[in-house]
Amino acid sequence: MRSIDAIGTPALLLDLDILERNLARMAQRAATLGVLLRPHVKTHKCPEIGNLQLAAGAAGITVSTLYEAEVFADHGFDDITWAFPLIHSRIDDALALARRIKLGLVIDSPEALQALATRHQGPDPLRVWLKVDCGYHRAGVDPQSQQLVTLAGGITEAAGLAFAGILTHSGHAYHAYGDNERRAVAEQERSVMVSAAQRLRDGGIEVAEVSVGSTPAMTAAESLDGISEARPGNYAFYDYTQCVLGSCRPEDCAVSVLTSVVSRMPQHSIVDAGALAMSLDPGPDRDAAAMGPIYANDGSLDPELRLASVSQEHGIVNRALPVGTRLRIMPNHSCLTVACFDEYHVVRGGDLLHHWKVHRGR
Amino acid sequence: MRSIDAIGTPALLLDLDILERNLARMAQRAATLGVLLRPHVKTHKCPEIGNLQLAAGAAGITVSTLYEAEVFADHGFDDITWAFPLIHSRIDDALALARRIKLGLVIDSPEALQALATRHQGPDPLRVWLKVDCGYHRAGVDPQSQQLVTLAGGITEAAGLAFAGILTHSGHAYHAYGDNERRAVAEQERSVMVSAAQRLRDGGIEVAEVSVGSTPAMTAAESLDGISEARPGNYAFYDYTQCVLGSCRPEDCAVSVLTSVVSRMPQHSIVDAGALAMSLDPGPDRDAAAMGPIYANDGSLDPELRLASVSQEHGIVNRALPVGTRLRIMPNHSCLTVACFDEYHVVRGGDLLHHWKVHRGR
Repeated sequence: MRSIDAIGTPALLLDLDILERNLARMAQRAATLGVLLRPHVKTHKCPEIGNLQLAAGAAGITVSTLYEAEVFADHGFDDITWAFPLIHSRIDDALALARRIKLGLVIDSPEALQALATRHQGPDPLRVWLKVDCGYHRAGVDPQSQQLVTLAGGITEAAGLAFAGILTHSGHAYHAYGDNERRAVAEQERSVMVSAAQRLRDGGIEVAEVSVGSTPAMTAAESLDGISEARPGNYAFYDYTQCVLGSCRPEDCAVSVLTSVVSRMPQHSIVDAGALAMSLDPGPDRDAAAMGPIYANDGSLDPELRLASVSQEHGIVNRALPVGTRLRIMPNHSCLTVACFDEYHVVRGGDLLHHWKVHRGR
Repeated sequence: MRSIDAIGTPALLLDLDILERNLARMAQRAATLGVLLRPHVKTHKCPEIGNLQLAAGAAGITVSTLYEAEVFADHGFDDITWAFPLIHSRIDDALALARRIKLGLVIDSPEALQALATRHQGPDPLRVWLKVDCGYHRAGVDPQSQQLVTLAGGITEAAGLAFAGILTHSGHAYHAYGDNERRAVAEQERSVMVSAAQRLRDGGIEVAEVSVGSTPAMTAAESLDGISEARPGNYAFYDYTQCVLGSCRPEDCAVSVLTSVVSRMPQHSIVDAGALAMSLDPGPDRDAAAMGPIYANDGSLDPELRLASVSQEHGIVNRALPVGTRLRIMPNHSCLTVACFDEYHVVRGGDLLHHWKVHRGR
């Protein structure tokens, strides 16, 4: 068994103890709230972690790209929701995948409904979700609009399509600080979706499922009455943004970037973790601009040390440290940081246990 | 031959006509200025493009990671400078590569010199560059310092090491707007490096080569007297940042991201090009915050349209466009955008000619 000390830098570390704890805690939370858990695997892009989520009770998975759906299907995952508005140029590939596994697609426009209704030819009905805007205002149909009813009815009536239900994402929970603000977003998401489902049902449209989800909302929600499933993703790893939002504590962050000081200047150091190791995510919008906090030797965050800025391969740490010093950086946004790497170095305690591939392709 | 219209989105397009013109123009410019050209391949990470650069007269290549060095060596490139301060945990792999090809390593600290002098065992001398700070102040030894002489002398005298010369990067040219400001940075870079070389030579240290380089400086330099080679990288593709700096015109930008409108909201559209297709590079610091300009149908930039913001997979375009509309986005920073993709769709005119792999691993 190799030691962490022998890992070449930069490297993406995944702490298995923390990961397992995060997965168990969210599975428990979903059970307590009475919803199925369909984790978003865009955070980890890793079938081994998806399998841990299934083993912890997840009812299926969520993906953001068709590439992710195909990779996970190739690894035996057979119940996948592609939670991104349908891309017209990917329809044929999506339909091919839907013949292999239980695949849910998402639309929020008459153009997408028309394209699916026209091009789907298989004997089995195609599962289609309608995306609803619960207040984030990025995408999805207005829950008060006539379009909600028109599109849900259109999916229901189209030959070959099956209306899976309504789906939303409370992305505005990423601007909600503290339990109270996040809880308010979670309750808004819940109530908007329950009302939208009721409107459809009052109009005679069967709504089998109502799907919500974001990690900041899911860690704060008091009730998910009327909701059938939740799709958080980031909770597997958390990150510095989630710490600032109050979704987690620093000790819940499961991934970090191991880096080395390669150059020492009078007022700063250069490390081998730049934009292509950390991403350029600037972190929570209430925080001073910085590209990531840095751990002290005892595993807590060093209050004095930070990754101040990055260029492509260079990271600038705000203090002059000896060349050769090894540091661990907490990502501002773990989903984007993970997508910089080909593999996880999976560690427990000080030992390197596995290399797990990050399927970051497109 | 397939048409661009058949490409699934999001996709990275590379215009071969523009690439070839950019490579020829910079090769001509280096010849006129009397320096060898050692292009930085971190921009493209693509051996096919590296071969086009060699065919256009490049004297070797520059890389930013050992992974890039190994990939290009595996593709027959035998003269590579790893222009990043030596990473201690990668020394053994670097020494192994140095036994296969002519590899230049870069240091700017006594710790790195000591590590190399101790661990290099081969019969052939190891080529070691000394990194000098020409005014960017990110890394490198102070050209006025005693350390310049101490480290250059230390490399020269160390058994098994060969002093390749001094090397710098004028990254501050990325904050220089217009020909005059960029030219001033280029001249500062040149004069600092020529003076540093002279100081060493006056002290009896042989300085075989003096290496400079950045695309904004190289496109503006009037003289490179006393310099032996230049290492620009971005010039192969350029991008929106280079347009704003004045290094190129919009019609010189060789890569773009092909994307589709997937959702239409009252005031904006969602496209399938988010942070994992564009990167989060905010673009030139004199520009209004936006994640990339968008092309009009005639190939010019649409003055009204832009990628206003991005999340992981979603891009927000600032106008409500029909679902299914296909758009091309110019990257703010082509090096980071390219690193989001596994392959180039290489096009000429409206035809898709090749798929070339982006070796973005780490």
